[in-house]
Amino acid sequence: MLPLQLQPESHVPLYVQLRDQLRALVHAGDLRPGDRIPASRELAHQLGVHRTTVANAYAELEAEGLIQGHVGRGTFIRGKGIGLKITPPAPPVLNGAAGIRWELLFADERGEEALARLTAAAPENSISFVMARPAEEYFPVEELQTCVNTVLRREATEVLNLGPSDGYPPLKEALLELLRQDGLAAKDENLLITDGCQQSLDLICKAFVRPGDSVILENPTYPGALAIFNGARTRCLSVPVRTQAEPGSALGLDVEALEATLAANRVKLMVLTPDFQNPTGTSMPLASRRKVLELATRHQVPIVEDHVYARLHAREERIPSLKQLDRGNLVLHIDSFAKVAFPGLRVGWMVAPAAAIERLRLVKQTTDLHTDQLAQATLAEFLRRGLFAKHLARMRKVYASRLVALDEALRKHMPEGVRWARPEGGMCFWLELPPGFDASELLIHVKERGVLFAPGRYFYVQAPQPNTLRLGFAGLNEKRIARGVHTLAEMLRIEMRKRQRGVRRAERSRVALV
Amino acid sequence: MLPLQLQPESHVPLYVQLRDQLRALVHAGDLRPGDRIPASRELAHQLGVHRTTVANAYAELEAEGLIQGHVGRGTFIRGKGIGLKITPPAPPVLNGAAGIRWELLFADERGEEALARLTAAAPENSISFVMARPAEEYFPVEELQTCVNTVLRREATEVLNLGPSDGYPPLKEALLELLRQDGLAAKDENLLITDGCQQSLDLICKAFVRPGDSVILENPTYPGALAIFNGARTRCLSVPVRTQAEPGSALGLDVEALEATLAANRVKLMVLTPDFQNPTGTSMPLASRRKVLELATRHQVPIVEDHVYARLHAREERIPSLKQLDRGNLVLHIDSFAKVAFPGLRVGWMVAPAAAIERLRLVKQTTDLHTDQLAQATLAEFLRRGLFAKHLARMRKVYASRLVALDEALRKHMPEGVRWARPEGGMCFWLELPPGFDASELLIHVKERGVLFAPGRYFYVQAPQPNTLRLGFAGLNEKRIARGVHTLAEMLRIEMRKRQRGVRRAERSRVALV
Repeated sequence: MLPLQLQPESHVPLYVQLRDQLRALVHAGDLRPGDRIPASRELAHQLGVHRTTVANAYAELEAEGLIQGHVGRGTFIRGKGIGLKITPPAPPVLNGAAGIRWELLFADERGEEALARLTAAAPENSISFVMARPAEEYFPVEELQTCVNTVLRREATEVLNLGPSDGYPPLKEALLELLRQDGLAAKDENLLITDGCQQSLDLICKAFVRPGDSVILENPTYPGALAIFNGARTRCLSVPVRTQAEPGSALGLDVEALEATLAANRVKLMVLTPDFQNPTGTSMPLASRRKVLELATRHQVPIVEDHVYARLHAREERIPSLKQLDRGNLVLHIDSFAKVAFPGLRVGWMVAPAAAIERLRLVKQTTDLHTDQLAQATLAEFLRRGLFAKHLARMRKVYASRLVALDEALRKHMPEGVRWARPEGGMCFWLELPPGFDASELLIHVKERGVLFAPGRYFYVQAPQPNTLRLGFAGLNEKRIARGVHTLAEMLRIEMRKRQRGVRRAERSRVALV
Repeated sequence: MLPLQLQPESHVPLYVQLRDQLRALVHAGDLRPGDRIPASRELAHQLGVHRTTVANAYAELEAEGLIQGHVGRGTFIRGKGIGLKITPPAPPVLNGAAGIRWELLFADERGEEALARLTAAAPENSISFVMARPAEEYFPVEELQTCVNTVLRREATEVLNLGPSDGYPPLKEALLELLRQDGLAAKDENLLITDGCQQSLDLICKAFVRPGDSVILENPTYPGALAIFNGARTRCLSVPVRTQAEPGSALGLDVEALEATLAANRVKLMVLTPDFQNPTGTSMPLASRRKVLELATRHQVPIVEDHVYARLHAREERIPSLKQLDRGNLVLHIDSFAKVAFPGLRVGWMVAPAAAIERLRLVKQTTDLHTDQLAQATLAEFLRRGLFAKHLARMRKVYASRLVALDEALRKHMPEGVRWARPEGGMCFWLELPPGFDASELLIHVKERGVLFAPGRYFYVQAPQPNTLRLGFAGLNEKRIARGVHTLAEMLRIEMRKRQRGVRRAERSRVALV
């Protein structure tokens, strides 16, 4: 029997674990050329995983040239002629003959990469709930074209030459006006233009966080934030986000857990998404926001408020942002055009105390001098002409309708035992499958039927729940949403029935043994 | 007498040193409200610096409210009414009442910031040799506008939505063609699109360099590189660049010194600019390039080749780049559109072994997801239509003519003892004033006459030479170049005469004393 140990609780998909462990056994010499390895069905049974998991691992090892199937005989470790000599492990990926072994300097594969691999090679025209990205069929291309042309006719020289690190002045002006409408009386010195929220987080990390510092993230959270702080060798603490309504506790960040974490640790900063959190879709109620600010003030810990989904509220009313409620200059408020307009234009912004902005401006300068000015100037014009307000109003309706469609499809099709809390806006639903189910395994089957989603495990800072998944709905119309959910529910029912049979079989065999 | 100690060899301008030391004396209580401080002429004499140095320091301290002049009585440390009580030092810059003391987290002012301060508030229509930036009057705005419109008509959806981290595919294709014309047979997997060379350096630093690692920089070098590696707490070693032709040694990087540095240190990587180096304008001859590659191979140290000025060669022939000569996959080749086209569009690229690019792509994704796609797509079209080649050919002529104009003006006006080596291309001249002169001090006078340049001290990794300065000529037409140099030379002659008189006076007083 092969010494294999799979950890269903891990961030790493089971098939990747299996692939890597088998490869390690070959490299260590425990498996040798000519050795026969079990059939996928057999090994799946031994390990208690689905056969597709094993098949996926075998397929990758075969592609690497490490194993080979022989009709009628089984699968073998490959050598120069079976049973003769091991093929050395694939040489480091280099373009030439000699050279530096670049890969020695590399970190491990990230969750996002694993997810990309898992969702790759889906059938043509698949219905993908994987991303939280805008509906591209509504891009106001003509309006944008008018803006670009106006800008290039009027101010090409300024736009095309080197600009200030804190942002193109007309965009800063237009954004200050937008912030005023948000109820934020910011000044020019409180505003920094960035390449979007990912860069804003990166600049904040560079400016204020040192290796070994502790940072609080939500659990689950946006993987891009986790990647930044892990990359900076930060100690990532996490505070749970409540994703299911339960009596006596609000949805969203678990504020009691936050209080305990702040009391027990010296924390450098915390990253929170009060509105339509990615990935859970939950929002923090007003009382939680006030409590969070009180805790931040007491412990003097700055809050990074990710405001990127906040404008996409399905209902009319909005809960005030942390920045609006902030009396202690504790909030670094980050936002961007990516979710509300065009992610392909890399422009975002940060609102913060002037002293923090001054520091961040220097870091921005060192990082990439300044943000692209054609995009900045075009978006400034888009704001000034009222086109942004118009586009946003339209998209809020589109997304609200898609949100309802997803909720209805889930109610209609999902089997008993699947749970979700309908969000009040944003771009994501968070689903909990019955305990014991692994969304990564489900994805393998669902993908074959042309539907994709993001397994929840990739969003966790710690203690990943393999039975969770995220559905990004904004980029799909109502019809595709309904069809996608139908397929997803169907495959889930099949898996549940299989499991039920497995349980019955186990019960029967238990009976026979007694 | 005040306990003041100025260090002319420091990176920090004399007036900043003086300002900071005086401020420290007040804060320490050594200077108290009501204390009279010497007149600027008097203090300048005591310290052996120019009076303007003291005047500059006093002006800033007055603006801070720390000192105050009284007609007929002199300059005094300020209090609530002179002689009564000290005004507490300015409170930390915050926007509200309470809050985090952000500035406690800050690093010191950078050289670039000091330079910005020094060149600020110049007279209207000043002739600025400060920056190495393109001639904006030649921006091909109409051609660019055609490209933007084509792109938005044809591929708006792809351009405006989220894109791949390694770059917009049509731009990658167009750049691979450009590289082929450069003699570089790169593949898609060898190419990463970035926001420009500043970001390329930052990504390389993030991907491969850890705090405490040693990195070799040229001395002097591009301050943006120094800022990145200093910010990452790297050990910055430096190798001198020879800026004056001397018998038996080539211009450009001192290859013997490089050899010694590599032999004596465990080096992680080296950053070199073989063509028209910023700030010195020097190029490495072919023999030096071969030797550098040989050394890199022997010590297995990757080279970052900054290729950003290389296309701006004044003569027809080009020396092959390190990347072209690289047989060992040692070179990370970085380049951008900033110097050859539009710095306001933040698009650059990197050519490197596939394994290095794969790592850098992940770092790029964590840093800002991807580069702005409107800029990428527009530049792809600009390349495809042959407009880039056309524009570059035109700009090479423009800059070659400006280079000649600067060289001629310098020959015509500069006093004996000023040295420079005429570069073969690029955007900068490097001047050496006679020993003992401080270019920062000269700048103060020249600025009053409406001419600006960059003192050399800001470009040094170590051992700054205060008598050096950089003239960026690309953005100025021949007439302004001539006028600027005329003024510069005139002010320099005045300073030289003053010094001469000072020496004579010193000689006389020496005579009197004996």
